[in-house]
Amino acid sequence: MITLRMFKDLSNDIMPYVFNTIGLIGKFADTNVAGSLLQIAGHLRRCRIRVLLDEATAKLIPLEGVEVANRNTIGEQSDLAIVVGGDGTLLNAARSLVDFQVPLVGVNLGRLGFLADVLPNEIPHRLEEILSGQFREDERSLLQAELIHDGQTIRRADALNDVVVHKRDVARMLEIDTFLNQQFLNAYRADGLIIATPTGSTAYALSGGGPIIHPALETVLLVPICPHTLTHRPIVVGADNEIEILVNEANTTHSQITCDGQISMAMQGGDRIVIRKRHPKLKLIHPTNHDYLELLRAKLRWGVTPEGMPFNR
Amino acid sequence: MITLRMFKDLSNDIMPYVFNTIGLIGKFADTNVAGSLLQIAGHLRRCRIRVLLDEATAKLIPLEGVEVANRNTIGEQSDLAIVVGGDGTLLNAARSLVDFQVPLVGVNLGRLGFLADVLPNEIPHRLEEILSGQFREDERSLLQAELIHDGQTIRRADALNDVVVHKRDVARMLEIDTFLNQQFLNAYRADGLIIATPTGSTAYALSGGGPIIHPALETVLLVPICPHTLTHRPIVVGADNEIEILVNEANTTHSQITCDGQISMAMQGGDRIVIRKRHPKLKLIHPTNHDYLELLRAKLRWGVTPEGMPFNR
Amino acid sequence: MITLRMFKDLSNDIMPYVFNTIGLIGKFADTNVAGSLLQIAGHLRRCRIRVLLDEATAKLIPLEGVEVANRNTIGEQSDLAIVVGGDGTLLNAARSLVDFQVPLVGVNLGRLGFLADVLPNEIPHRLEEILSGQFREDERSLLQAELIHDGQTIRRADALNDVVVHKRDVARMLEIDTFLNQQFLNAYRADGLIIATPTGSTAYALSGGGPIIHPALETVLLVPICPHTLTHRPIVVGADNEIEILVNEANTTHSQITCDGQISMAMQGGDRIVIRKRHPKLKLIHPTNHDYLELLRAKLRWGVTPEGMPFNR
Amino acid sequence: MITLRMFKDLSNDIMPYVFNTIGLIGKFADTNVAGSLLQIAGHLRRCRIRVLLDEATAKLIPLEGVEVANRNTIGEQSDLAIVVGGDGTLLNAARSLVDFQVPLVGVNLGRLGFLADVLPNEIPHRLEEILSGQFREDERSLLQAELIHDGQTIRRADALNDVVVHKRDVARMLEIDTFLNQQFLNAYRADGLIIATPTGSTAYALSGGGPIIHPALETVLLVPICPHTLTHRPIVVGADNEIEILVNEANTTHSQITCDGQISMAMQGGDRIVIRKRHPKLKLIHPTNHDYLELLRAKLRWGVTPEGMPFNR
Repeated sequence: MITLRMFKDLSNDIMPYVFNTIGLIGKFADTNVAGSLLQIAGHLRRCRIRVLLDEATAKLIPLEGVEVANRNTIGEQSDLAIVVGGDGTLLNAARSLVDFQVPLVGVNLGRLGFLADVLPNEIPHRLEEILSGQFREDERSLLQAELIHDGQTIRRADALNDVVVHKRDVARMLEIDTFLNQQFLNAYRADGLIIATPTGSTAYALSGGGPIIHPALETVLLVPICPHTLTHRPIVVGADNEIEILVNEANTTHSQITCDGQISMAMQGGDRIVIRKRHPKLKLIHPTNHDYLELLRAKLRWGVTPEGMPFNR
Repeated sequence: MITLRMFKDLSNDIMPYVFNTIGLIGKFADTNVAGSLLQIAGHLRRCRIRVLLDEATAKLIPLEGVEVANRNTIGEQSDLAIVVGGDGTLLNAARSLVDFQVPLVGVNLGRLGFLADVLPNEIPHRLEEILSGQFREDERSLLQAELIHDGQTIRRADALNDVVVHKRDVARMLEIDTFLNQQFLNAYRADGLIIATPTGSTAYALSGGGPIIHPALETVLLVPICPHTLTHRPIVVGADNEIEILVNEANTTHSQITCDGQISMAMQGGDRIVIRKRHPKLKLIHPTNHDYLELLRAKLRWGVTPEGMPFNR
Repeated sequence: MITLRMFKDLSNDIMPYVFNTIGLIGKFADTNVAGSLLQIAGHLRRCRIRVLLDEATAKLIPLEGVEVANRNTIGEQSDLAIVVGGDGTLLNAARSLVDFQVPLVGVNLGRLGFLADVLPNEIPHRLEEILSGQFREDERSLLQAELIHDGQTIRRADALNDVVVHKRDVARMLEIDTFLNQQFLNAYRADGLIIATPTGSTAYALSGGGPIIHPALETVLLVPICPHTLTHRPIVVGADNEIEILVNEANTTHSQITCDGQISMAMQGGDRIVIRKRHPKLKLIHPTNHDYLELLRAKLRWGVTPEGMPFNR
Repeated sequence: MITLRMFKDLSNDIMPYVFNTIGLIGKFADTNVAGSLLQIAGHLRRCRIRVLLDEATAKLIPLEGVEVANRNTIGEQSDLAIVVGGDGTLLNAARSLVDFQVPLVGVNLGRLGFLADVLPNEIPHRLEEILSGQFREDERSLLQAELIHDGQTIRRADALNDVVVHKRDVARMLEIDTFLNQQFLNAYRADGLIIATPTGSTAYALSGGGPIIHPALETVLLVPICPHTLTHRPIVVGADNEIEILVNEANTTHSQITCDGQISMAMQGGDRIVIRKRHPKLKLIHPTNHDYLELLRAKLRWGVTPEGMPFNR
C-alpha cells in the first residue's frame, strides 16, 4: 500500500524538481522550529522553488524572500506542504489541506513522530531526495464527525487520529448508545468513547487499551474509556460503516466531542453524532527509508532489550 | 477479619435490643426510598427504638413520629445508622459519620450493592436480626486528601472509595509526580490517577484496569487512567504510606480532585495533594449471611455460566 | 457484507428446494446430538432431499434411510452441509469442506454459538426457511499454516479461528521472531503467539486481550500470550500479508503449533511457520434473523444490566 | 519495612566483619559467573572470612583455597550467602536456604535484577560495605504448595515468586475451583492460574496482567492466565489465607504445578493443591543505596522519556 515513487528519469534540464510550489507550515506558537524552517526555506529558494509560508507561522517567525499565504492559498497553489513540528502540527495541517489533495511531509523537532518522520539533522539530504522525486507515499483516511441538533447538522469537524466523545464533569459517567449503519451495536457506560482511524490507533486509543491497526487498513476502531461493564472490549469495524452515537439525554449537558485532541464541540441534550469516513484521503510523503514497522518498534520501544524484560524469572 | 457477633445471651427483659437510638438516612433527592424508610421507621418504633431521621431525607419524605436531626446530631446520638439507597448513599453517610464511630448498615433499593447489602424484601427479617445483636461487622479504612496551596492546607476531604486526580480539559493530559513517604515513585502522563482503598477497588479503579483488593487488607491502590507510557501498571502499597501528588504547574489550572465521585476540589498552579489513611475506621454492619466472596461473584457476574464462556472453541 | 438471499420466486412445483443433496455432520463422540440429527434427517427425507450422513457420526448415531459418506464425498456431492454440535464441530467441518465450496449451517446444542447459530428448538422453522432459499450468507477467510523444516514444507494445516504458536514446557518462554511480507515486525518473548482471523477474534484471542474484529474485515490479528515486554500490544494487519514466524532455535524443541485448538504440529529446531490467507473462502449460512451485533452482545453479555454495572459509585 | 543497619560502631580491631562464614553460590551451568566469583572469593579470603563454595558451582568453576560444601552445609554454617547470577539463581538459593535463616545478597551478571541488585562493577565497594555491616535488610515471604492425592500430601514445594497451575496440553483449558480458607472464591476457566507473592508480582504475574505489589505487603496475588470469562480480574488477598485449588477431574491429567518456573509437579485426577504462607521469612540483604521504587522505575523503564510517550497527539 505504501508505494515507492522513483522519478529518476525526470532529471531533465527544464524541470529538475517535481514540486514547483511548496507550502511551509511551522508548529503553532513555537519558535523552536525557526532553525529548521530557515534551513528548509533556504534550500527551496536555492532550488528556485516557490515557497508559501503559512501566515500563522510567518507572524511568529518571519522568513525573508518567501511569500506569506493563508492555509487555503497554500492548499490551492502548493504541490507539496512541508510541516515542521510534531505529529500534532501535522494533524492540524492534514485536516486543513486534505480537500486540496496536497501531499504532506512532516519534519519533527527532535524525536521521531508517527507522522512527522523526517528528523531535523536529515533535512538537506531527505529534502533533496523528496524534491527529486524519490520518496514513499501512503494514503490515510480521515473521519468526519457531524453534530446533529434537532435533526439539523449544526457542526462538522474532521479527524486524522480520533473523534472522542467524553464527559466534562468527572463525577459522572456517560451512557452512550452506538449504532453501525443504523444497527444497534452497544450501550456503553463509560468515561467516554474513542473512535479512531488506524493512524489514531497508536495515539490516544492505545492508552485506552486499543490494539495497533496497520495504517493501510480501511477500518475504524472503537475503544471505550474506563467502561463500567467489564466485558466491553475494543472493536474494529470497516471504515465504510456509518457510526452513530447518542448520549443519554440526562448526560448530554456534560459531554463534549473532541477531534484529534484539537477541536472541541459541546453537546446539548438530545444531540447525535454521526461519524463517517471522509473523502478524499490524505497523501503522506515519507523518506525512501521509511519503514512503518521499524517506526512502531522504535516508538513503542519494542527493540529495547537490556532492561526490556523486567522479570525476575 | 469480619467478625460474627452473636449477642444471643443478651435476651433479657429490660434491654432487648443492643441499639437504643438509630439514625435513618435516605438516598439524596430520591423518593423511591420512601417505602423502605416507612417500613424501617415503623419497625423501629414498634421496638421502641428512638429514630433520628436525617434532615435532608425528612424534607423529601416526612415520616410521622420520628425526630428529625442533622447529620452531626445523628453522629453524636446514634448507636447505629441505617442507610437506605445505594452504595453512593452509604459513601456519603460513611464520610459524615466515621468520626462518631456510628456503625452503618446499608439497605439497597433493588439490586445488591457492595456496601449496601440488605435487600428491601429482607428488611423485616434482617432488621430484626441486627437489632437483636446478630450481625457481622467489618472495618474499612477511609482516605483523607489534603489540598495544599502555598504550603497551607486549604481544604480536606475524605473518601471511602477513592481520591481521583483528573484533568478538566479533555484535550490535555496531566503530568503527575507521585511520592510515597517523600520518596519519588513515578511521573505519570495520563488522563488522571485513581488512589483507591480496598473498598474502592471494585468501583472506579476496576474500570481503570485495577485488581480487586480484599477489603480486609490495609493497602492503597494507585491506578493511572489511560497512561501514555505503556509500561505503567496499577500499584498496591501499604495503607500507612503518605502519598503525595504534584501536578505539573502548566496543567494545574485544568485539574481537579474528586473524592468518592461526590466531592470535588479545583486545583491551582503549584498545588499539592497529600493522601493519608484516615483514623478512625468505619464500622460496617452486615447481615449474618454476608459473604464477601459471594458478593464479588454476584456483582462481577462470575457465576454466570450459560453464556459466560463466549468462545467458539 | 452479509447478503440476504430470498429465493421466494423459486417456489415452483418441480424443484421446491434450492438444495438437492445435504451433508449432515454431528459433534464428534457426543450422543447428545442424536435428537437434533434425527429431527433434521426426518425433515430432509420428507422433503425428498438426499442426505449424506458423515461416517464418523454414523458410527455413533446410525440413522435409518440415509446414505453414509466420508467427508470428501460429502464435499463433492453436497449443496449444503448441516453441522450439529457447537462452534468446535463447525470449525472442524469448515476446514474439511472449504475446498469443496459447500456452504455450512450450524445447529447448536443448547446455547448459541458464534458460528453455530441455529438453536435446536428452532430447527423445523429455520430449516424450512433455509431449504426454501431464505437465509443470510456470509463469507469467512481461513488461514493456512505451513511448517517448514530445512527449507521444505513438511506439513500444512488450516484454521478458521486461529493458529497458535506456544511452548510445551511451561517453565520456559518462547522467543518468537515475526515477519510481515519478509519485513521484520517484532521479537516476542512470550508464552506464545495467537494469529487469528476476524472469526477467531472472539475465541482464544479475546481471552489473550485482543480486540473484537468484525468478521467482514480482511484482516489478521496477532496477540502475544503473556508477553514479557510490557509495551507489546495486539496488532491488526491486512489478511494479504504473509506472516512468517521463527522460534528461537534453543526453544523450538519445546514449541508447537495448534490450529483452531484442534490440530497440533510439533516443531523442531530451526523450523519456520508461514501463515497465509487461504483460498477459497468459507460460505456460512445463517437464519434470516441473524444479526452479528446482537450475537456479540448476547455472547459477551453486554446486554446484562441489572448486575452488569458492578460499581459502588 | 526495609531497615538500614549501620554497624559502624563495630569497627574494632579484632572482629572487623559481621559475617564469619559466607556461602558462595553461582548460576547453574553458566561459566560467565567465574570472574565475579573469583573476585568475591579473593576479597573474602583477604578479609580472612571462611568461604563455603556451593558444590554444584565448584564442579563447573573450581576456586582455589575455598571449602566446597553442599547446600545444607552452607545453610547450617553460613552467616550470609552471596549468590552470583540472576534473579533465577537467587530464587533457587532462597528456597534452599530460607529454613536456615541465612541472609542472601544477590550479585547480578550484567543487568540489574529485582532480587540480585549488586552489579558486577560494584562488587569490591558494595561487598566491603556489606561485610562491614552497612546494608539494608528486608524480609520476603515464600509460599508453600502442597500436592494432595487421595487425602495424602504427596509432595511439597516452595516458591519465592509464584506457584503456577497450568495445563500441559495446549488445546485444552483448565477448570480451576479456588477456595480461600475453605470458602469458595471462584471457578476459573483459563489456561492457568498464577498465585504470586509480592516479590513475584513483578515476574510472571505482571505479564499475565497483574498489578505491582509492594514487597513489604503481606498479600498473595491471584492472576488467571487467559481467562475465558471476561469479567475475571487479578485479586489481592491477605497472605494468611489458605488457598486451595481443585482442578476439574477430566483435566487433571493435563495439568501441572510449577514453583518459581523451576520446580514442576505433575497432577493426577482429583488432586488438590493447598498453598500457604511459609515460615520463616527470607532475609534479603541490599546495598545501602537500594531503593525499591528506583529499581521498579529502572526495570519497568518508567524513567524513559524521549520516546516513552509514543503518541502522535
